[in-house]
Amino acid sequence: MTFEGPVQRLIDELSRLPGVGRKSAQRIAFHVLSVEEEDARRLAQSIIDVRDQVGTCVRCFNVTSTEECSICRDPRREVGVLCVVERAQDIAVVERSQEFRGRYHVLGGALSPIGGVGPSELHIAELAVRVGAEDIKELILATNPTVEGDVTAMYLAREMKPLGVKVTRLAMGLPVGGDLDYADELTLGRALQGRQEM
Amino acid sequence: MTFEGPVQRLIDELSRLPGVGRKSAQRIAFHVLSVEEEDARRLAQSIIDVRDQVGTCVRCFNVTSTEECSICRDPRREVGVLCVVERAQDIAVVERSQEFRGRYHVLGGALSPIGGVGPSELHIAELAVRVGAEDIKELILATNPTVEGDVTAMYLAREMKPLGVKVTRLAMGLPVGGDLDYADELTLGRALQGRQEM
Repeated sequence: MTFEGPVQRLIDELSRLPGVGRKSAQRIAFHVLSVEEEDARRLAQSIIDVRDQVGTCVRCFNVTSTEECSICRDPRREVGVLCVVERAQDIAVVERSQEFRGRYHVLGGALSPIGGVGPSELHIAELAVRVGAEDIKELILATNPTVEGDVTAMYLAREMKPLGVKVTRLAMGLPVGGDLDYADELTLGRALQGRQEM
Repeated sequence: MTFEGPVQRLIDELSRLPGVGRKSAQRIAFHVLSVEEEDARRLAQSIIDVRDQVGTCVRCFNVTSTEECSICRDPRREVGVLCVVERAQDIAVVERSQEFRGRYHVLGGALSPIGGVGPSELHIAELAVRVGAEDIKELILATNPTVEGDVTAMYLAREMKPLGVKVTRLAMGLPVGGDLDYADELTLGRALQGRQEM
């Protein structure tokens, strides 16, 4: 059964969102119908606002509602170290660790020969310019621990090292609090390769 | 870390939706940022539309964008049998079974002494009026198989039977395709009570 016009259209729109299935979409649609008028309008407005007011940082390609993002504008951030991430939302993950005080560079994805994503589709040229112009000493590659992330990291290392910058990558190994029993063989292999003297 | 103004506000709004956690909200927000402008606006508009155009059916309290809902207006639906559900979205579940060709009545919830929901908070008076006015022969109670749903069903049976209508309730028992091993004792108890001669 489909619902009447506007209800079904909202369910269809919600179903397109990542991680929202048919059932959740229906649940959310009826939630939207049941909440205060004002709450529903605020949700709609926040979608419009994010599109009207948010763009990408001219320097690092993070999301921002100003020309440069709040991290690039922050004078307390260390200059000389850039953490290179695939997507803007990865910045939040690195920030939560509270281990990094430098600035970022968002690639806009990862290299994927199968997906047709080459170096020119990513903000790699802009990274090279920054390395020279901002006197960057180290690039910390925080691409995903996936095939695409690996390929991207290797490509970046090859391209950036000749510019005289140190290139490092996040360590791969056992997740903290994890159980050795549940570690997959690839992760365990990386943990062995990256073992550290105590 | 929080994101810049409009992004964080959208994440906050999305987090309020049922079944959407912090992480999903963030994922959806960045999805909204990355899709075509037009797609984002259509999502926002469909939220506005559902609030502007959708109300409740004057007869059965289903959601509708007209005075009576499409089911109440459908001349092919059997009159004389009403399926009584807690919420409008339950109608979709019953419809999917394709076993019911009558019409519906939405209570708007279930009785809950703890939650402060009494008979006057539900569309029970309107149901009594319909039973008389529409010459209803049978009420099929499809309230949830929960304590509140049970209480509501018992209350309705007591109130409606004196009006000369047959009152039935959906059978409780083993879910089709389920495994006896996984049936909880309450369900198995109900399945035993409701056993049918073969």
